[in-house]
Amino acid sequence: MITSGPAANLIGMTRNTTGKTSLTLLGLGAMGTALARAWLAAGHPLTVWNRTPARAAALAAEGARVADDAAAAVAANPLVVVCLLDDASVDEVLAGADLAGRDLVNLTSGTPAQARARAEWARERGARYLDGGIMAVPPMIGVPEAGGHVLYSGSRELFERHRETLAVPAGTTYVGEDAGFAALYDVALLSAMYGMFAGAAHAFALIRTEDIDPTAFAPLLADWLVAMAPAVHQTAGQLRSGDYTEGVASDLAMQVAGVPTFLDTAEQQGVSTELLRPYFELMRRRLAEGSGAEGLTGVVDLLVR
Amino acid sequence: MITSGPAANLIGMTRNTTGKTSLTLLGLGAMGTALARAWLAAGHPLTVWNRTPARAAALAAEGARVADDAAAAVAANPLVVVCLLDDASVDEVLAGADLAGRDLVNLTSGTPAQARARAEWARERGARYLDGGIMAVPPMIGVPEAGGHVLYSGSRELFERHRETLAVPAGTTYVGEDAGFAALYDVALLSAMYGMFAGAAHAFALIRTEDIDPTAFAPLLADWLVAMAPAVHQTAGQLRSGDYTEGVASDLAMQVAGVPTFLDTAEQQGVSTELLRPYFELMRRRLAEGSGAEGLTGVVDLLVR
Ligand SMILES: NC(=O)c1ccc[n+]([C@@H]2O[C@H](COP(=O)([O-])OP(=O)(O)OC[C@H]3O[C@@H](n4cnc5c(N)ncnc54)[C@H](OP(=O)(O)O)[C@@H]3O)[C@@H](O)[C@H]2O)c1
Ligand SMILES: NC(=O)c1ccc[n+]([C@@H]2O[C@H](COP(=O)([O-])OP(=O)(O)OC[C@H]3O[C@@H](n4cnc5c(N)ncnc54)[C@H](OP(=O)(O)O)[C@@H]3O)[C@@H](O)[C@H]2O)c1
Repeated sequence: MITSGPAANLIGMTRNTTGKTSLTLLGLGAMGTALARAWLAAGHPLTVWNRTPARAAALAAEGARVADDAAAAVAANPLVVVCLLDDASVDEVLAGADLAGRDLVNLTSGTPAQARARAEWARERGARYLDGGIMAVPPMIGVPEAGGHVLYSGSRELFERHRETLAVPAGTTYVGEDAGFAALYDVALLSAMYGMFAGAAHAFALIRTEDIDPTAFAPLLADWLVAMAPAVHQTAGQLRSGDYTEGVASDLAMQVAGVPTFLDTAEQQGVSTELLRPYFELMRRRLAEGSGAEGLTGVVDLLVR
Repeated sequence: MITSGPAANLIGMTRNTTGKTSLTLLGLGAMGTALARAWLAAGHPLTVWNRTPARAAALAAEGARVADDAAAAVAANPLVVVCLLDDASVDEVLAGADLAGRDLVNLTSGTPAQARARAEWARERGARYLDGGIMAVPPMIGVPEAGGHVLYSGSRELFERHRETLAVPAGTTYVGEDAGFAALYDVALLSAMYGMFAGAAHAFALIRTEDIDPTAFAPLLADWLVAMAPAVHQTAGQLRSGDYTEGVASDLAMQVAGVPTFLDTAEQQGVSTELLRPYFELMRRRLAEGSGAEGLTGVVDLLVR
């Protein structure tokens, strides 16, 4: 079934008769399993390995080849995808594998520094390296309509070569040659999400002490957050131009004047202000620097040391 | 032009020959001026007053009647809308007015406690009272496609009677008889928005120290926030049922395990963690209570005293 003749090897790929690239996947947790299913469903010959063999056995029934150990799995295909818990587990799993000539795609979450070190580590072992940050949860994998995507950075050559295969589980977004960028974007996006969740938690806490159905409030909250999210475009434009007053509708002076309303309301509803106070403090600090005519962009400057 | 005969007065409205309710508006700041223009454009006879007369004069040219003082403006129409800076200015402006029989709609931002006290104050003066929280910026007023809306609470009778007139500047959402609810929802929604903006500020700070164009990053950020905002529906459902493990895809144990990646990345990029740390602390506290199989909803409980 697999055509792994000299010509295919020359370009670092093996394909089956339907032209689908053959690949290896290490790690079959919640995410790895979802990835495996997406590739199998699309007809890609897939070799898998997982520390706990039971998880691989389940996929064998769906057409995956199961390697005996990680080294054998790596040897099976030029394209090797890794989706493990963390950087330490990547180290452990790949310790005994021969990576020479491999195209290594690491979808394990980590810091930009870990991704850069891993890229260097792969280079020393003769492998091309692409790092990925998955912006999706497992149920979104293999479901293009779900809008999930994977951020990639590192070897552009590797990315271009395997673009079609990588696009099977989720959309692909290449963010630069610096192997650390995918992780940086990933961490930045998730950090912003945690900020949004913190704000939402505060909002739910405020209504909690009243006889208000949270499921009746949620649609208002979701719509409002969706309506306000595009404000990040103005922030970005201001950061680029350096003019933080550009197109400002609600200025900082007015917004800081409104802060007591937020703190007093929380106080009166018996809700801790710990999640909002740090942001309000930065708004006040920026205002005190004489930036009352700006919007909120100046807060970004206060965060960078 | 105005038919203010006995029949019209009986139902507390005056209408012009095209059937548009006549009303009074106090306060012509950025928001008040936008409201005034929307009503004038829709053909509503409008009497205005503003502390600084110049702002009213500009509207006279567009068809508004300008009252000499606030008391005269209140006397001019049964329906009186107030949009001033804060609760203290409402007190000052309405001090000398006879509110008996008036339908008072207060669109001035404030706390739920201020709204409730103002409702009681209006009742004592023989007026019906509706409080409003404007979920829009001035450019969205009178532009239905912009999706802005005003949250209303207090007298349902007043709301139903003037629904059509109130719907002219922006959509209307009635949230309950408790006059404080519009302000509570307003504060809750804006608090959530500040959380989202705090998260976005952290995200921009993270990429700031690299050679990354913020306007290229912003679309990824906006899309991600929009994609994640509907998570509030799950939170709401869990708060209602009391089962915080319901439908959890990424459990708290796994998310807390990822926290060092966020803190380390910020550290390495030279970005303060002050905006994210309080939320991570609450995640950790909730996990320590033995809630590793939950999602993030338990944080709400930790905020309420
Ligand atoms: N799930 C999500 O929503 C999501 C979303 C975006 C990104 N991600 C990222 O995707 C990666 C995998 O996540 P997941 O959800 O699949 O996690 P998971 O369900 O916890 O699975 C972890 C995987 O790593 C393996 N592993 C852990 N330590 C190991 C070690 N020392 N040696 C060998 N194998 C080890 C596990 O093997 P065993 O089966 O033997 O335990 C399992 O295959 C993580 O970096 C995560 O941050 C996940
Ligand atoms: N602008 C927005 O984006 C927005 C969005 C949602 C809600 N709101 C709310 O709408 C309300 C009005 O906002 P705005 O944007 O129109 O504010 P603004 O532009 O600052 O205007 C404030 C208005 O209040 C008047 N005022 C202030 N103190 C007064 C006093 N002591 N006596 C009499 N009049 C006084 C001002 O009169 P002078 O002209 O004489 O100064 C002016 O008409 C506020 O509660 C605000 O929170 C605004």
